Amino acid sequence: MAQVISERRDVEFVLHEQFQVEELSKHERFADFNKKTVNMIVGEARNLAIKELLPIWKEGDEQGCTFEGGKVTVPESFKRAYDLFNEGEWLAMNEDPMWGGQGMPHVVSQAAAEYFNGANYPFMMYPGLTHGAGKLVETFGTDEQKTLYLKKLYSGQWGGTMLLTEPCAGSDVGALETIATRNADGTFSISGSKIFISGGEHEMVENIIHPVLARIEGAPAGTRGISLFLVPKYRLKEDGSPGEFNDVVCTGIEHKMGIHGNCTCSLTLGGKGECIGTLLGEENKGMAHMFLMMNEARLLVGMQGFACASAAYMYAVDYAKQRVQGANLTKPKDGGVPIIQHPDVRRQLLTMKAYVEAMRSTLYYVGLCRDHMHTAETDDEKEMYAGLIEILTPVAKGYVTDRAFEMCSQAVQVYGGYGFIEEYPVSQLLGDCRITLIYEGTNGIQAMDLLGRKLGMKKGKIFMDLMGQISKTVAQAKEVENLAPFAARVDNSLKKLGEVAMHMGKTAMSEKVLNAFSFAHPFLDITGDVVMAWMLLWRGVAAAKGLEKAKKKDLAFYEGQLKSLDFFTGCVLPVSEGKMEMIKATNEAIMDISEDSFIC
Amino acid sequence: MAQVISERRDVEFVLHEQFQVEELSKHERFADFNKKTVNMIVGEARNLAIKELLPIWKEGDEQGCTFEGGKVTVPESFKRAYDLFNEGEWLAMNEDPMWGGQGMPHVVSQAAAEYFNGANYPFMMYPGLTHGAGKLVETFGTDEQKTLYLKKLYSGQWGGTMLLTEPCAGSDVGALETIATRNADGTFSISGSKIFISGGEHEMVENIIHPVLARIEGAPAGTRGISLFLVPKYRLKEDGSPGEFNDVVCTGIEHKMGIHGNCTCSLTLGGKGECIGTLLGEENKGMAHMFLMMNEARLLVGMQGFACASAAYMYAVDYAKQRVQGANLTKPKDGGVPIIQHPDVRRQLLTMKAYVEAMRSTLYYVGLCRDHMHTAETDDEKEMYAGLIEILTPVAKGYVTDRAFEMCSQAVQVYGGYGFIEEYPVSQLLGDCRITLIYEGTNGIQAMDLLGRKLGMKKGKIFMDLMGQISKTVAQAKEVENLAPFAARVDNSLKKLGEVAMHMGKTAMSEKVLNAFSFAHPFLDITGDVVMAWMLLWRGVAAAKGLEKAKKKDLAFYEGQLKSLDFFTGCVLPVSEGKMEMIKATNEAIMDISEDSFIC
Repeated sequence: MAQVISERRDVEFVLHEQFQVEELSKHERFADFNKKTVNMIVGEARNLAIKELLPIWKEGDEQGCTFEGGKVTVPESFKRAYDLFNEGEWLAMNEDPMWGGQGMPHVVSQAAAEYFNGANYPFMMYPGLTHGAGKLVETFGTDEQKTLYLKKLYSGQWGGTMLLTEPCAGSDVGALETIATRNADGTFSISGSKIFISGGEHEMVENIIHPVLARIEGAPAGTRGISLFLVPKYRLKEDGSPGEFNDVVCTGIEHKMGIHGNCTCSLTLGGKGECIGTLLGEENKGMAHMFLMMNEARLLVGMQGFACASAAYMYAVDYAKQRVQGANLTKPKDGGVPIIQHPDVRRQLLTMKAYVEAMRSTLYYVGLCRDHMHTAETDDEKEMYAGLIEILTPVAKGYVTDRAFEMCSQAVQVYGGYGFIEEYPVSQLLGDCRITLIYEGTNGIQAMDLLGRKLGMKKGKIFMDLMGQISKTVAQAKEVENLAPFAARVDNSLKKLGEVAMHMGKTAMSEKVLNAFSFAHPFLDITGDVVMAWMLLWRGVAAAKGLEKAKKKDLAFYEGQLKSLDFFTGCVLPVSEGKMEMIKATNEAIMDISEDSFIC
Repeated sequence: MAQVISERRDVEFVLHEQFQVEELSKHERFADFNKKTVNMIVGEARNLAIKELLPIWKEGDEQGCTFEGGKVTVPESFKRAYDLFNEGEWLAMNEDPMWGGQGMPHVVSQAAAEYFNGANYPFMMYPGLTHGAGKLVETFGTDEQKTLYLKKLYSGQWGGTMLLTEPCAGSDVGALETIATRNADGTFSISGSKIFISGGEHEMVENIIHPVLARIEGAPAGTRGISLFLVPKYRLKEDGSPGEFNDVVCTGIEHKMGIHGNCTCSLTLGGKGECIGTLLGEENKGMAHMFLMMNEARLLVGMQGFACASAAYMYAVDYAKQRVQGANLTKPKDGGVPIIQHPDVRRQLLTMKAYVEAMRSTLYYVGLCRDHMHTAETDDEKEMYAGLIEILTPVAKGYVTDRAFEMCSQAVQVYGGYGFIEEYPVSQLLGDCRITLIYEGTNGIQAMDLLGRKLGMKKGKIFMDLMGQISKTVAQAKEVENLAPFAARVDNSLKKLGEVAMHMGKTAMSEKVLNAFSFAHPFLDITGDVVMAWMLLWRGVAAAKGLEKAKKKDLAFYEGQLKSLDFFTGCVLPVSEGKMEMIKATNEAIMDISEDSFIC
């Protein structure tokens, strides 16, 4: 198999030809990251992914995690990989070198993350959550908290988690019941039960740091009374090393349909009254603090789902090129051909290709926007990029994982019967990918976020900015021979999207607000479709430029870019436009139907 | 939980109000099956499903099948259920009582099959395959073969399978390499290896009868040289009881992403040169014989997938009515409400409701067409029903299982994080359902069957007949107040479907044949969409009639029928019409893109 996990040429194309990341190195912050360095970094990530993470992916799935006598065991091979990953200092790629980070541009770390997650997403959840916990400490911690925890988290020496969910507080985090009682020394005694805690308990690290959402005794009900606490598995001794057990007890792990290599724990805090935490950030601002991290976390989930789809696409193409089955329809007597020659298989592969490419560009682009926030020359510009991140987050999480799951299923289909067999990789990708549509806010929540929060944010400016950016690419593409018809198709869909957005915004402000929200998910779909088309058009512009001076070996790649664009604008956008008409009609059956009519 | 597996009221509505199955009892063949009897049969099936099959579904999944020392063990609890199922004489519901069948109308047995498969589809594969093997014996067997095998298969005393697939012969069955060598006594020595054999080896029964596709030495290559053989696991003694082992060796079982309770075996036949089979039907007609059974087998797969979706819908509604999470958007201060009140959850549930209802009607209708073939008064009528079965088979298998998988995934989404956990039922339904898109001809093959065989069959007459039947319902609905706007929407889509069919037929006959086939699957999608709309409109007509004399307790049900119709015509058909436009444009990128452009 020539390539795995992700298409190297395409990754480089996005970084250098579509987004020209070298531009970033003109700015002091990213001065170290010239093209050569960027390629070296991504190349090293790729090596580690292929040589260390991918080989233990299936094994990790088969072994899974076990819970016995209160002890959680993760797949045996993960420990060595975890240490290698930390030695390579990959856990905090974007963070401040002062705290052990690498200060890398986000657009570059997205490429590394794609390789890592595509190789072994269940494994990557351990460092991923640890990074998130570190980021909370970095952002909201006191100097003391930073000194005690931050380097140990960013280096991976300790693990990190996120304790939000409780049995009755899932999407509605505000319903949580974990209580924090103020102690005389300023610490808090924590008491409650949390579920669905990824990496909540294991022995790969000497300590695990849990950021915990809880309500201080007497605080208001709902989200306004929630605070964030830092709760270590082992309390810290004076020298900062792990000491006494802090009464955080794992009571079980979940049996799931995927990501078996990652342990999903139920944790009881303070069952013996001996769980101590310190406040992280401000009292009663826990939800707001958590939300500040949310975009980043959601972008990571988008990457996890996407990486499954990218890997699934690689496997499917490889299989389709090798698997001989059935004759070419027009040459029945010539005998069996590789199935990539069959029209329906080509349809499936090109569908996957176009989505995978568009999703890759989208996720890297959101990373680039973060980088531009640092390099922006004006506050307006900075704000624009911040807004683009806001508006693109539901697409990068919700739309991307919806499509990613479909693409994994498509890969299963390309494999036929073998796709259903665990001996082959694609069924695991499908199972792993499924959770990405759910956690960090279900995709329904993402759709509500787009319609209810993002669309109206700054009086619609951030949505308008997105449309403006797309229009820019459309204008560029119109100037390029061969691209004009595709640009016109994208432009057409963009204008219709604008109309639908107006309609949805108005409806959401009217007494028909619930009707509007019953179309939030389709609205996310069409927004995502147009963003995908934008990314493919942008790629088209870059590919057209590439073609001008292309060597023979590059022709297939660049022409393939134009085919993705042709396919997506010709085969996906017309369906999106049908969806747009549908949304504008805002059928009322969804809200009108009586609950009693569901199963009589 | 009030109801499981399937909605009783809806099943009865389809049988009696939509399809008026009692009409069948006017004919001698079905004279025993009046309304009361039909309800009793379906009620008994439901009882058996709920009391015996459903309780061992999850256990069967967890235990799975094991292979040790050449021996396959199926879930422990299956044996008792298997015996009960056979005692109830459920295996050959439609078959001739002379051979142990029940002579039941197909439309009625579909309802029973829905309950059985929805309760425990992996279990049901054992009797399902056995029935299929019996049907082959009944249709193509000599009197001697029938006497030896048929009652024992139809009673479930022996098991049956289907040995088609080999490692290099999946979708392309004609590439198979199993050889049959003629013996002096008229029997054949069989030698070869088969894979993916459901129920290929187990010890629930005293013998297993394998219909095997193989090539007689010297026969032509490809499908024209394939014959069908009957190969028992144990050869029969003179008295017909199982004797010597017939050299059919299980070499392993597959580890799959679902249907764990059913063993998927690799079998080596004649490894020691001692596997004897008898010819079933005519030499070199094996493929044709198999194809005669294909519609029935495909309809069963559609039922398997659909039953998963139906059960998933039941669970999702139940969960959504009970799970309290988040406030109503318009009453944020009132606190948590059952999630069925949230617009996006309602959208998901109504989507599932509409598809499940439409798919149920479709599958039962294909059964009804089979019954009408027996009750038809003229050859023309009989032929018309035969044609409707032909044209609807790719919809009933391909379209239905595509949607069924999506509906199972939708149910996972309604459950949120719990949907990903094996403790809850929906993740298993998703995993089980996935294979239905693949086996008995992948859904890509179904799409090719629709475009390449069925659309042009009898110069397009069977497709025209389908459109004619839909038009009849449209005309009826136009006469009913309140239904006219829905009828107009269906009519509009139907006309457009006709145009697309013309376009596809022409394109498939031109030099652009491969382009046509690259849109075979979308063409199946739109055909299926219109068939679903038809079924919902037909239900609408029946519901409108029901409403006229409805008691209060029936109102929610009938009104729910109209909401499904309103939703589907308002939210699905506009998207289908976008797809229709897309197909008519027949984008050429799929066939034009170079293979080298897939991963460079």
